Amino acid sequence: MAKEKNVEQITDMDVDFAQWYTDVVTKAKLIDYSGVKGFFILRPYAYALWENIQKELDRMFKETGHENVSMPLLIPESLLQKEKDHVEGFAPEVAWVTHGGSEKLSERLCIRPTSETLFCEHWSNVLTSWRELPMLYNQWCSVLRWEKTTRPFLRGREFLWQEGHTLHETAKEAEEETINMLNVYATLFEDFLAMPVIKGRKTEKEKFAGAVATYAVECMMHDKKGLQAGTTHYFGDGFAKAFDITFSDRENKLAHPHQTSWGVSTRMIGGLIMTHGDNNGLIIPPRIAPVQVMIIPIASHKPGVLEKADELTAKLKAAGMRVKCDKSDQSPGWKFAEHEMKGVPLRVEIGPKDIENNQCVAVRRDNREKEFIPLDELEAKIEALLEEIQTGLFNRAKKNLQENTRPAKTLDETKTLIEEKGGFIEAMWCGEETCELKMKEDAGVTSRCIPFEHKKVDEKCVVCGAKAEKMVVWGVAY
Amino acid sequence: MAKEKNVEQITDMDVDFAQWYTDVVTKAKLIDYSGVKGFFILRPYAYALWENIQKELDRMFKETGHENVSMPLLIPESLLQKEKDHVEGFAPEVAWVTHGGSEKLSERLCIRPTSETLFCEHWSNVLTSWRELPMLYNQWCSVLRWEKTTRPFLRGREFLWQEGHTLHETAKEAEEETINMLNVYATLFEDFLAMPVIKGRKTEKEKFAGAVATYAVECMMHDKKGLQAGTTHYFGDGFAKAFDITFSDRENKLAHPHQTSWGVSTRMIGGLIMTHGDNNGLIIPPRIAPVQVMIIPIASHKPGVLEKADELTAKLKAAGMRVKCDKSDQSPGWKFAEHEMKGVPLRVEIGPKDIENNQCVAVRRDNREKEFIPLDELEAKIEALLEEIQTGLFNRAKKNLQENTRPAKTLDETKTLIEEKGGFIEAMWCGEETCELKMKEDAGVTSRCIPFEHKKVDEKCVVCGAKAEKMVVWGVAY
Repeated sequence: MAKEKNVEQITDMDVDFAQWYTDVVTKAKLIDYSGVKGFFILRPYAYALWENIQKELDRMFKETGHENVSMPLLIPESLLQKEKDHVEGFAPEVAWVTHGGSEKLSERLCIRPTSETLFCEHWSNVLTSWRELPMLYNQWCSVLRWEKTTRPFLRGREFLWQEGHTLHETAKEAEEETINMLNVYATLFEDFLAMPVIKGRKTEKEKFAGAVATYAVECMMHDKKGLQAGTTHYFGDGFAKAFDITFSDRENKLAHPHQTSWGVSTRMIGGLIMTHGDNNGLIIPPRIAPVQVMIIPIASHKPGVLEKADELTAKLKAAGMRVKCDKSDQSPGWKFAEHEMKGVPLRVEIGPKDIENNQCVAVRRDNREKEFIPLDELEAKIEALLEEIQTGLFNRAKKNLQENTRPAKTLDETKTLIEEKGGFIEAMWCGEETCELKMKEDAGVTSRCIPFEHKKVDEKCVVCGAKAEKMVVWGVAY
Repeated sequence: MAKEKNVEQITDMDVDFAQWYTDVVTKAKLIDYSGVKGFFILRPYAYALWENIQKELDRMFKETGHENVSMPLLIPESLLQKEKDHVEGFAPEVAWVTHGGSEKLSERLCIRPTSETLFCEHWSNVLTSWRELPMLYNQWCSVLRWEKTTRPFLRGREFLWQEGHTLHETAKEAEEETINMLNVYATLFEDFLAMPVIKGRKTEKEKFAGAVATYAVECMMHDKKGLQAGTTHYFGDGFAKAFDITFSDRENKLAHPHQTSWGVSTRMIGGLIMTHGDNNGLIIPPRIAPVQVMIIPIASHKPGVLEKADELTAKLKAAGMRVKCDKSDQSPGWKFAEHEMKGVPLRVEIGPKDIENNQCVAVRRDNREKEFIPLDELEAKIEALLEEIQTGLFNRAKKNLQENTRPAKTLDETKTLIEEKGGFIEAMWCGEETCELKMKEDAGVTSRCIPFEHKKVDEKCVVCGAKAEKMVVWGVAY
């Protein structure tokens, strides 16, 4: 396949995974760097991917009764400070607006790092009766966090996300919402991004600033590090009290509602790249791929080839697939490499010989398997291949997760496993933060989550040996 | 209809149009005010309307070959200053970020008031060959402009919009793009928002900061004032030179591309309200209405009523309509007024007597006409009614525009017409800015545009009497 390497070489992922990642996001034309550190440009191909993800997620939000809104970009400093834990968590990393035009502002305004405070202020204005509950809101926007180190998709000073914010009559309803939305996220990751997840609860140390409880979906990347892919938060009525949000309940008494928030971001595109990619570039699961099938005419100067390529394109498009035909004046080899770099799940080649035999050649991006497809069965065969790729990618990632998740009973065992093999550790935890910190200090791992799917690995805490009921998944994370 | 007035009264539009507008945007639950002046919250109903508009526009953008991208929120001061006219136009009204976390920034960053400079910087990084042209980009985002006076939708310090930015090989192609996109806007306004437009070119004085030419679609509101509803700009290669954007042309020589930008914003929702609304509230054209049909059960405690209401809802939904059923415990009268306020195009009432007669009652929002609909013909009749409402609203607005656009040959005639009747004036103009300024000074009108559809109102400039070829539409505008 040497002739296919006419696209600039990318770094070998097993030699330098971080450099491989940077190479892929630029060479696949996902990202350009702007003049301000940590602010990334999402080029058309990345944005199309984000739109496909948005479409599925937005559909699921609406099916579960949520409505979209738009909140302001700026938060007055005094508003940010209303909830004590929240401001402590976010104030150190916000960007401050001090001037509007030539006028110095009487109060600094921060660019939203997240919008809990804005939603609370709005709700304190509009909520009156239990009849208006639940309020199930979502917002698609960008937020800013002034991070020290930044990487495309994974950690930006600005990133695109959705933030759901909901108000409920009862604590029970709000708690259910956090679990329901975590399940929506799990569906998105597993069924569309082909990324298997571990669902669980965060420890007190790792939870969101101001939350009573935080839940997360955690994934494992190709390099066996963890990625927190999405979180949902239960707030109780803490914010409602801090912001004086009240309503007349069914007994006509004044009550505080219970609240949640939840979010996923373009970070998941980073996760997608690090889950499925290989040394030829990106691999995008068919269900969210901007282009599912790239048709490449071979010997396109020969009579009938371009016409046939157009015909196949039209047929697949009519069958509902996202298909393109690359008729540029580049060589087929150049095109193969280009669309492999961009992770197009399936390539279809059509040349004079194929036309003669009433067939085309389909080449899978995930395993490079080649198949001759009779043109009479084109749509059905291609659709089946796309499904196979989707499932194949999920199974490969699932295998990576399962094979690299190992139980440990002691801190020493944990250290050895992490040093020698990496991956996730399943180990019991007594619930004390000192033990959690010791795991970080000695073995370099943080608690990823306390999985809903409990396994009794041992009776005792992996660090202090005290009786332990909780099983925690630990790992090195992005 | 007195019993329908149990929703809080709104101001009479013919008594105080501005107050009527403010009443409608709040009582129809479109807007809430945030704690920062000029930053408005788009509540679910307003955002659903925006999403419907976005959907049609985004579809048309993609059908014409455009791709969405995401650019950074912040622009370094030095980047904003690269194009002289552009910075002069925008620098006085931007918001400045001076601190990130606790660190003072070495250079001030402004929140984008528009993104020409960011697109130019990106293109100067990535463009290499004529093969990559045209680049047809669009971005959906919010922008900030630190306005002194603000009004919901019409003038916000923050507003949602789309900004198209394109690069072309030739001036001709770029010029064509500005006209094509103006036509896309005209289609959106006329066919979906039922707002008739005048298409034309802006005068030098009114054009965009940094543009060679600006084109606009102009509308007339119920109070006969004008609203600039959308603009497209041709930049020539001025920005390309200022930002050093080059490419190898077909002769392998280094060349500067030609550039356009174009945008419409949530301002159009303000325009929609002021075009179609009446003293009972909003009226939303069916093609973009979040709810096209509101079904209201009458005597809903009677057996079979709610079931029938559900059945009608399901039928209309299955036929592809956006339909809801209001089963709340409010009275029918309250519901009538509520959904009239929110401008739902069609109300369908169903009660025991209707069920007996195998019919329902449809009441149009635009003219309050009542019609009995045989249930066997439900879907077809309702669909036809929605189409009639759509057309009816457009025709009513068109009539308003035509009846209130009048020719004038002198400044005195203009003054009298504007004072006595308002509306638009069609008058010849010599092309001198002094005459344009005099029209503003003496008659209080600005040039809305030089319409593509030329009318020869006179031989001489309405102000100075010199020979004049250009016909300008003048008016008082929002």
